[in-house]
Amino acid sequence: MGIEGLAERLAEGVVVGDPGVVASYSRDQTFVVPGEALGVVLARSTEDVAVTLAWADENRVPVVPRGAGTGLAGGATATDGSVVLSLARMNAIRELNTADQYAVVEPGVINADLDRAARAHGLMYAPDPSSHEISTLGGNLATNAGGLRCVKYGVTRESVLGLEVVLAGGKVINTGGRTVKGVTGYDLTGLFVGSEGTLGVITGATLRLRPAPSAEPVTVAGTFPSMVAAGEAVAAVVAAGIEPSLLELVDRATLLAIDDWKNIGVEDDTAAMLIGQVDVAEPREPAARMAALFEAAGATAVAVSEDRAESDELLGIRRMAYHASERLGHCLVEDVCVPRSKVPEMIARIEKAASGHDVTVLTVAHAGDGNLHPLFVFDRGESEVPAPVWAAADEIFQGALDLGGTLTGEHGVGVLKRRWLGLELGDDRLAVQHAIKAALDPNGILNPGKAI
Amino acid sequence: MGIEGLAERLAEGVVVGDPGVVASYSRDQTFVVPGEALGVVLARSTEDVAVTLAWADENRVPVVPRGAGTGLAGGATATDGSVVLSLARMNAIRELNTADQYAVVEPGVINADLDRAARAHGLMYAPDPSSHEISTLGGNLATNAGGLRCVKYGVTRESVLGLEVVLAGGKVINTGGRTVKGVTGYDLTGLFVGSEGTLGVITGATLRLRPAPSAEPVTVAGTFPSMVAAGEAVAAVVAAGIEPSLLELVDRATLLAIDDWKNIGVEDDTAAMLIGQVDVAEPREPAARMAALFEAAGATAVAVSEDRAESDELLGIRRMAYHASERLGHCLVEDVCVPRSKVPEMIARIEKAASGHDVTVLTVAHAGDGNLHPLFVFDRGESEVPAPVWAAADEIFQGALDLGGTLTGEHGVGVLKRRWLGLELGDDRLAVQHAIKAALDPNGILNPGKAI
Ligand SMILES: Cc1cc2nc3c(=O)[nH]c(=O)nc-3n(C[C@H](O)[C@H](O)[C@H](O)COP(=O)(O)OP(=O)(O)OC[C@H]3O[C@@H](n4cnc5c(N)ncnc54)[C@H](O)[C@@H]3O)c2cc1C
Ligand SMILES: Cc1cc2nc3c(=O)[nH]c(=O)nc-3n(C[C@H](O)[C@H](O)[C@H](O)COP(=O)(O)OP(=O)(O)OC[C@H]3O[C@@H](n4cnc5c(N)ncnc54)[C@H](O)[C@@H]3O)c2cc1C
Repeated sequence: MGIEGLAERLAEGVVVGDPGVVASYSRDQTFVVPGEALGVVLARSTEDVAVTLAWADENRVPVVPRGAGTGLAGGATATDGSVVLSLARMNAIRELNTADQYAVVEPGVINADLDRAARAHGLMYAPDPSSHEISTLGGNLATNAGGLRCVKYGVTRESVLGLEVVLAGGKVINTGGRTVKGVTGYDLTGLFVGSEGTLGVITGATLRLRPAPSAEPVTVAGTFPSMVAAGEAVAAVVAAGIEPSLLELVDRATLLAIDDWKNIGVEDDTAAMLIGQVDVAEPREPAARMAALFEAAGATAVAVSEDRAESDELLGIRRMAYHASERLGHCLVEDVCVPRSKVPEMIARIEKAASGHDVTVLTVAHAGDGNLHPLFVFDRGESEVPAPVWAAADEIFQGALDLGGTLTGEHGVGVLKRRWLGLELGDDRLAVQHAIKAALDPNGILNPGKAI
Repeated sequence: MGIEGLAERLAEGVVVGDPGVVASYSRDQTFVVPGEALGVVLARSTEDVAVTLAWADENRVPVVPRGAGTGLAGGATATDGSVVLSLARMNAIRELNTADQYAVVEPGVINADLDRAARAHGLMYAPDPSSHEISTLGGNLATNAGGLRCVKYGVTRESVLGLEVVLAGGKVINTGGRTVKGVTGYDLTGLFVGSEGTLGVITGATLRLRPAPSAEPVTVAGTFPSMVAAGEAVAAVVAAGIEPSLLELVDRATLLAIDDWKNIGVEDDTAAMLIGQVDVAEPREPAARMAALFEAAGATAVAVSEDRAESDELLGIRRMAYHASERLGHCLVEDVCVPRSKVPEMIARIEKAASGHDVTVLTVAHAGDGNLHPLFVFDRGESEVPAPVWAAADEIFQGALDLGGTLTGEHGVGVLKRRWLGLELGDDRLAVQHAIKAALDPNGILNPGKAI
């Protein structure tokens, strides 16, 4: 099966077969080795997507939807004989409604671009994955992306009012609406969000905006002599009802990697740093309360930002984590989530797994949500994730499930985590997922082999 | 088909065939005339539910799940030849985890009972339908119930971490988990929430609790000379980022009905009252800002509560609405939702429809969410909703859809709104819903004729 038949149905230049281009659209940010795709569709419109899916369904050709390819689960990696369907060129903000605080966007809009457009009107788009400057809203929706601000504003799902989705056969449906509430029929919006391109292709979304903070947020950073002390600080902040707009934990290994790069200075007795932020109208008072709670939990040093520059600097430590670890070698970024109080225990298990398999692991966590990202560093000479890293990851996934947690808090299952899926879901729950998949995509053309 | 076969599989007393009892379990709060059920199952355990669904699936007997029967859409009304499956006796709070702020509950727990149990630990259960003292959490989940506090804390869905669900054939699955985030597999939790008992029976839920407000919330009430002025006040409050914990609108007709009962005093130039509340740690400052915004929008009088008694009194006006209208006759409670800025226009359309069909309508609204409840009052002599009421309701539904809204913000479709479903969803979207229904309930035994 070639893609000439599809190329004939679309405008010139929409279908690209050039092997170099195809290869560049075949990988995401993981080490998953892609299959050989037939070609890439650079969709410009919902109509292009509909034509592509109708053709693919008729001809039983797998379609791999793709945003910016920043995914960390292999969800957008090409498979043999597939067509990669890129939504990156559909990047218009169709409407920005300030009165009702929503935006209607195409899927290729970069997350931070929507946020900037909203800020021009005193609004913001809350979900902010660390990849906000490079990932698309379509990709965020398809993975139900999280981010730093989720601890206050919820994950992507909580900001979605409605979707435009092209189904496997090429039909276009709208889900949800423009209202903040609505219970007509089943929650299809929630079903497509996080489905990693396996149930339909998202070609439009109505996203909720919120008033941007009226004052400069205040950032509080504290260093702790133990994970347990940091965990107590998190619990105290949450129990006090402070509602931080972010609450991030950076472990010692990560701090050392950042120090190695940027010379931030790490004391011998620092086991972890906790960085919180408050973005309410009068942030100083709750920020001071947060700082006091950090101290009460045993923080060795606490800093409270006086202005934006200081705030950016403190938060910058967290933002440097990923790049600091990349300097050490290749990285496998993991993404377990546990009930919040179990974060210290989960970190202990991560450390145990790392030393047991002699693997380097750096951990940062959205501590307020119990979502941890252990970053496994391995030699740049390796072209695949080495076996000991998988063995340590396996132990960590088991640990997360033992603690009442989940395999993935926000990155998705993709191909990387499918082998652990059964462990978490069990047969009956997995069977329900497959029944839904079969109902919506009977010929199995949408991103086969991913997510479920 | 009799239910003797089922009775044999369950303990003595679980299956009830007494016609009086069956009749009392066959209606909800609507005027939908129920069919004749075979009997009622008073389930005491997940096992009882599983046995019932297995038997019903084998014998193709429709099952009507039921909480407290306070529904306003006819969702829990019995159909001919069905078994009514009451979850009301499964009313244990299985776990209340204060460290991770969640509760594990059985479906028959009354909403307010969970909230009270949580408050004993400084926590609260946020979703608070006006029926919170009489409706069950299972019913709340099955309808994705809203309430006053949803404007700040989201609808029921936003407080659900995971579910235990019995599927049509009797298999028991768990969805979600105990973590605040998680993207392993499709969002089955969201799919079952709001599915009105047509996809599975909810036998357990892990619900998110939040810190209860540390200070007494402050209530602000203002009277407005026009709906447009009240609408401007709502927009101003939202734009200012005040985040009220509730923001309710009561129209003149409702105020008069309350006055007639409780003598609250309604000025000639009052078109509506707006009641807002702030529940943050330092509520006085934002409450004062809200009061100023009410005044700036043209409020003729504004009151700010000084203590709990005053707060309860102001909010009491809103809480009396339903009972005040019931004094006038039978009520059909409707539930449209529009983008927030369209509330004044929607109210104008409601008034036009009411006068056009010579029908009495009182309207209250969760104004911060754009969710309006027009209450149609009709003669107590009528045993069914009169034709002019339906004609006016029809116009109102059309109006809501014209304004970019939805047929139901929180009460659900049940049987009452099925005839308008196609209007909102269209054929393709409805087809997806039916495909999902067929995938999960191939024999169509779960609450047939409801929701979709
Ligand atoms: C430095 C860095 C930091 C990151 N930080 C975070 C973080 O904080 N939180 C977080 O959640 N993730 C994070 N990620 C992961 C990644 O950025 C997110 O998963 C993001 O949502 C992917 O968006 P994308 O446009 O790159 O999608 P892609 O990688 O192209 O695709 C991701 C998945 O979505 C599907 N898909 C894409 N577009 C569509 C569409 N329109 N319709 C249907 N399916 C579609 C794909 O098939 C694939 O399964 C990070 C990644 C990097 C590299
Ligand atoms: C005075 C009054 C005020 C109200 N205010 C509000 C309000 O503010 N917001 C709001 O949203 N609603 C409101 N309602 C409507 C009603 O209370 C809600 O819909 C409530 O969630 C229904 O709960 P219930 O236990 O009575 O469910 P029922 O009426 O018994 O059932 C409702 C639906 O859920 C299904 N169901 C019930 N339990 C289960 C289960 N365990 N598993 C699967 N399906 C199940 C039933 O089949 C039915 O379709 C109000 C009603 C009244 C009478």
